[in-house]
Amino acid sequence: MRTVEEHVDTILSSLPTLESIELAVLDAQGLLCGEEVVSSTMLPAFDHSSIDGYAVRRADLKNASPDEPAHLPVVAEAEPGSREQRNVSPGSAIRIFPGALLPGGADAIVPLAWTDRGVARVNVVRCPPAGAYIRRAGEDVQPGDTAVNVGTPIGPAQVGLLAAVGRVRVQARPRPRVTVLSIGSELVDVGTTPEPGELVDVNSFALSAAARDAGGAVYRAGSVPANRDRLMSTLEAQLLRTDLLILSGGFASGSFDVVSECLSELGQVEYSRVAMQPGMPQGFGVIGEREVPVICLPNDPVSALVSFEVFARPAIRHMLGKKRLFRPMTKAAATEHLNSPAGRKQFRRGLLMRHPDGGYVVSPVGGAGAHLLFSMAQANCLIVIPEDVTEVTEGANVSVMPLVLGS
Amino acid sequence: MRTVEEHVDTILSSLPTLESIELAVLDAQGLLCGEEVVSSTMLPAFDHSSIDGYAVRRADLKNASPDEPAHLPVVAEAEPGSREQRNVSPGSAIRIFPGALLPGGADAIVPLAWTDRGVARVNVVRCPPAGAYIRRAGEDVQPGDTAVNVGTPIGPAQVGLLAAVGRVRVQARPRPRVTVLSIGSELVDVGTTPEPGELVDVNSFALSAAARDAGGAVYRAGSVPANRDRLMSTLEAQLLRTDLLILSGGFASGSFDVVSECLSELGQVEYSRVAMQPGMPQGFGVIGEREVPVICLPNDPVSALVSFEVFARPAIRHMLGKKRLFRPMTKAAATEHLNSPAGRKQFRRGLLMRHPDGGYVVSPVGGAGAHLLFSMAQANCLIVIPEDVTEVTEGANVSVMPLVLGS
Repeated sequence: MRTVEEHVDTILSSLPTLESIELAVLDAQGLLCGEEVVSSTMLPAFDHSSIDGYAVRRADLKNASPDEPAHLPVVAEAEPGSREQRNVSPGSAIRIFPGALLPGGADAIVPLAWTDRGVARVNVVRCPPAGAYIRRAGEDVQPGDTAVNVGTPIGPAQVGLLAAVGRVRVQARPRPRVTVLSIGSELVDVGTTPEPGELVDVNSFALSAAARDAGGAVYRAGSVPANRDRLMSTLEAQLLRTDLLILSGGFASGSFDVVSECLSELGQVEYSRVAMQPGMPQGFGVIGEREVPVICLPNDPVSALVSFEVFARPAIRHMLGKKRLFRPMTKAAATEHLNSPAGRKQFRRGLLMRHPDGGYVVSPVGGAGAHLLFSMAQANCLIVIPEDVTEVTEGANVSVMPLVLGS
Repeated sequence: MRTVEEHVDTILSSLPTLESIELAVLDAQGLLCGEEVVSSTMLPAFDHSSIDGYAVRRADLKNASPDEPAHLPVVAEAEPGSREQRNVSPGSAIRIFPGALLPGGADAIVPLAWTDRGVARVNVVRCPPAGAYIRRAGEDVQPGDTAVNVGTPIGPAQVGLLAAVGRVRVQARPRPRVTVLSIGSELVDVGTTPEPGELVDVNSFALSAAARDAGGAVYRAGSVPANRDRLMSTLEAQLLRTDLLILSGGFASGSFDVVSECLSELGQVEYSRVAMQPGMPQGFGVIGEREVPVICLPNDPVSALVSFEVFARPAIRHMLGKKRLFRPMTKAAATEHLNSPAGRKQFRRGLLMRHPDGGYVVSPVGGAGAHLLFSMAQANCLIVIPEDVTEVTEGANVSVMPLVLGS
């Protein structure tokens, strides 16, 4: 039996790095930048006013005061978007708007509040400091500056900065294409009424949602029976177009022979008993000419979702290039006594709540059964009890992995 | 001048509630459930085995021990997916696989580990407890149980549970359709080289990314000049198909007349000076026959993004039906002295870091200029300094709004 950490390490150390691809800037949102984006231009590109006001020569306003305002003729208007390079001659002013090219000769902008807002002539009651309300070309970014670096997550500000330096497209680490497939002869698709003995394919839905939440570009391949020909043709079709295969089911002795035979014909897949509850049977390998990693998860919906959290989510984040592969953990006081099997790391569904006196408390939700999807849907965290702990007393601190961040 | 909170309240109290719509279950991921989904079936739908083993009558195994195993003929195999309802007659066993229909008469499953794995006959060395490894129909969900409630966020477990109760589609609170438009005669689209006086339209990109991050279904309408006909036709076209309009720019006296004239022809929009830095000029109103809310943000990219965080993000989350409209705040020790204008709430770009001794420290990034997009892209938080605070001494605690959750 291997530990959870050993199985995580096996998976993470075998994942390929996806080459960066060129994407439209908005399509790169949420991804990591795949190139050093060096600005070839200055930002701002030209000196301009940041406010509504008058472009002036300060020498003309030296003695301006509310009692003795300076009187200046307004010789022009400088509008944003106008390419006309105007000039303020000594003893005059130019009405200017935010974003407009700074007229030649101007060394400050007078805000409207210090004037009588005159149109043909303006009275100014104060002399602004040198450079007031002038934004200088290149103040933000100089040619040769790195605007966005390799590995930087592309959020709204980066999207804006990329546009500002003229980039329509950018190299980014792509979302891994993730194919999700359920295996089992008992599975029928949702929407059909299952006969006794048949089960609705829950996992291809739940795991697709989880894989998308982790950042994958997901294709839900649905379910296939544990039948050699059907499984082989589905796998072969998917291997051409996917970066990561997530299979659930196929561990029971009835179907294991079929599944393991198909996978070993296509590559190397290793099955392990992992010291955890739920989710003991796990598999991982690399199949097909393109050496696509395949993660085999157990069949029961709760085992599948918990195993996804523990193994597949970090794998998808690793393929995205993220640095934080694992969900942040927190501590909470258990509201009741908890038992855990010796030698297995237990992942128990829990409800994490703020305690009015500060800190967190956590209650287990539902029983231990790996088929109890209802309680999985009630839970907002997993309580993680280490291998060497068999009892947690009421009020003791336990490790908790919150699954949802806010609602 | 109104406070930030007053402007937030004005916006939030005027937003419409979007009717729930029917979506494919996987398309509802991340949204709130819009209906009470009541299960009409039992989960599991039938009694079945949870393991590989043998279905038995415990009466036949009473005295089974390693020394004196019980010998039972294996009369059949129960495979998952088979609809055949088998029966265990007294003194016999049926080989069974996980998920397979429980044979009539069986009152426990014997795991393989307690047997010699016999095919025609099996030796059993222990008697399992009553009901061992049997999952009973309805253990998880009963007909009439609420599987997913109104207002529940639909995550992977809910997607699975919806599939399990047979739902292909579900009513959900839709993503608001958000149209993002920049206004300014100086704006040119990214990819064209701006002439002196012209600016690349950054805001329609950055705000589109921010609106998508907030949960909107975003249409980037690009930029229009402050020209009555162009603006009116763009607004009229968008009003037919959007739930929220986000405009940036148009506050400078040069273009304000045009923008305010167009908007007041279409509805009621109020412009306010809000006691904040950056982002003092703000607008909000409702326009068009469908009474579409319109949020007017300032023109400078940093002002626009900060104002989006403060006003538009909570608005989008409100329209999604989310309970937590605002980003969680935290406290951090300032690494340097900070000044803030009296009577204005300052939102300063900052870099929030964990302190090795615990807690957080925060450093301001870049200057105060609202055009300094580069420092906005370096920041991972906003430092929020209240209206009545003009100085924060080095080491003092400040409120911080983290902008990104992990990378």
